Amino acid sequence: MRPRIAIDAMGGDVGVRVMVAGAALARHRHEDFQFLFVGDETRIKAALANHPNLSAASEILHAEEIVSADAKPSQALRNSKKTSMGMAVAAVKSGEASAAVSAGNTGALMAISKLALRTIPGIDRPALAALLPTMKDSDVVMLDLGANAECDSRNLVQFAVMGAAYSRIIYGFEKPSVKLLNIGTEDGKGTGPVQGAADALRKASGLALDFQGFVEADKISTGEVDVIVTDGFSGNVALKALEGAARFVTDLLKRSFLSSLRSKIGFLISRPATELLREHLDPNNHNGAVFLGLNGVVVKSHGSADEKGVANAVEVAARLVEDSILGRISEDLDKVSSLAPSEAASK
Amino acid sequence: MRPRIAIDAMGGDVGVRVMVAGAALARHRHEDFQFLFVGDETRIKAALANHPNLSAASEILHAEEIVSADAKPSQALRNSKKTSMGMAVAAVKSGEASAAVSAGNTGALMAISKLALRTIPGIDRPALAALLPTMKDSDVVMLDLGANAECDSRNLVQFAVMGAAYSRIIYGFEKPSVKLLNIGTEDGKGTGPVQGAADALRKASGLALDFQGFVEADKISTGEVDVIVTDGFSGNVALKALEGAARFVTDLLKRSFLSSLRSKIGFLISRPATELLREHLDPNNHNGAVFLGLNGVVVKSHGSADEKGVANAVEVAARLVEDSILGRISEDLDKVSSLAPSEAASK
Repeated sequence: MRPRIAIDAMGGDVGVRVMVAGAALARHRHEDFQFLFVGDETRIKAALANHPNLSAASEILHAEEIVSADAKPSQALRNSKKTSMGMAVAAVKSGEASAAVSAGNTGALMAISKLALRTIPGIDRPALAALLPTMKDSDVVMLDLGANAECDSRNLVQFAVMGAAYSRIIYGFEKPSVKLLNIGTEDGKGTGPVQGAADALRKASGLALDFQGFVEADKISTGEVDVIVTDGFSGNVALKALEGAARFVTDLLKRSFLSSLRSKIGFLISRPATELLREHLDPNNHNGAVFLGLNGVVVKSHGSADEKGVANAVEVAARLVEDSILGRISEDLDKVSSLAPSEAASK
Repeated sequence: MRPRIAIDAMGGDVGVRVMVAGAALARHRHEDFQFLFVGDETRIKAALANHPNLSAASEILHAEEIVSADAKPSQALRNSKKTSMGMAVAAVKSGEASAAVSAGNTGALMAISKLALRTIPGIDRPALAALLPTMKDSDVVMLDLGANAECDSRNLVQFAVMGAAYSRIIYGFEKPSVKLLNIGTEDGKGTGPVQGAADALRKASGLALDFQGFVEADKISTGEVDVIVTDGFSGNVALKALEGAARFVTDLLKRSFLSSLRSKIGFLISRPATELLREHLDPNNHNGAVFLGLNGVVVKSHGSADEKGVANAVEVAARLVEDSILGRISEDLDKVSSLAPSEAASK
């Protein structure tokens, strides 16, 4: 199946130009990719004029409106039939596209995708998953990163299954290792939902994942585990704490490097090293947060992603389609559905 | 009142030697400090022999046993009358000491302190607070860092009052700014408890704090706020994510500096800069996590703290006693007690 990706051309800090350039880069690497650009037709045409190769593989779907960066999810939902974001997701639902990529408002994209695509049978709530850099060669899949502020144990078990399916597709691991984020690694630590999820995952058998208990947040970047599962509040806190700390340390470094002439010279000489660091931490190399658990593939590109970042997001979307993430999640769900009772149903 | 600090001499990675050396450093800076060392008498005597000045201001209380680093809180409680940690806290309760400092097992110290000292009237649960480095001159007070995995809005309001009292004492701020950790800054974001706490704090008046809404975890280290309040799960996740990220970035830096001869030379030349960085991030400069909300002052020194770190913890303990943290918390509690209804009572 040739992946045909619907691109919300209007989202993100830059918008049309970088979304089209990113798609062109992805198309350059993958000759079979097809695109459906959704948004202002005139501007998309102008941007495509610079990329004839991409142009030949693209169609345009004109959208009158856009979802603003500060729109509330409820506002975005009301208007979704006319917005580039809403129409890109609708194209996935109708089958015109096999996946959607947007760099727009995350909350709006979540709400629109949830309403249009609904969740896979057996999944109570979708989750936002992303790839975070580690000291090892492979990134760690972490979810939920903010879609669900409060989660019960059943949600967490479903996230484990979804995250493992994602890791298997991206890295080809047969049984990715999975841990629950916790405030200690001993049994009995943490909240009720975390305890309950650990119980259910320990008892499950035949899953395409290797549940290894708990991980603390200082080990997220060590690469000791393939998938980290948590509720959306803690996941968002961890993700943003990591981002903030990386910025904090590099700011401090910059400040101290500039504190003396000697340091300045040292900084210039060692610039290739600090650039290697920047390269490794660059979110563009890890771009492509995914809403897992929906009847369709929707990838959130970072608002500030450059064309390399957008190309990454497009490739992630295509991989998830080609390797049928939906089917993999469903298969594994059958193996745990009996284990985590329906405490979630009432929530 | 001359502060008399009970020191659990046996806790921490190194134990007696560093605890005594740290106390000696604090005593060197503050002539009025008195000490009660609790632990193995022979070893404490030997360590004190190197510090005659400290020796003259110290008594020793022999304890037969120690709380091991991996003991569960329940085990530690059972045996607490014979352990150096249990006896140091008991000395605070009996009035023999005005505060206790331990570098031992955090969970055990919390459990022992809670049982022996009980909470201040009006406080449902104590919290673990610490000072974290920022880009500004003052550290940020953050709590809870792991004492209570699950919190309701009433707990969070109480933590806000306790954290502000801590910030006022450490930095002399009249009305420290306080924010609740959240996954967005818009109204309506986050969990029920976070929403409820924000409501109560917005309505409260006459508090010795300035409630300013929400802060996201990427802003913890910017210094934009004096006190950050959250539940123990998220607080622990944020703290450890920060620690892990700092280590991750410095490891990456080291690796990239060593990747070429040119970088190595640059690294050597810029060493004063990287040392400034290490100095700023060194936990020994921010040591002294405090259990707030108890009828007594208990400070947790980091297990790996050196003598400078222990001296910091001792000074924090003395400051909290001298500036009567307990009284300040009680005063402010009266002003919010009517605002956050007793949803916590049943939990």
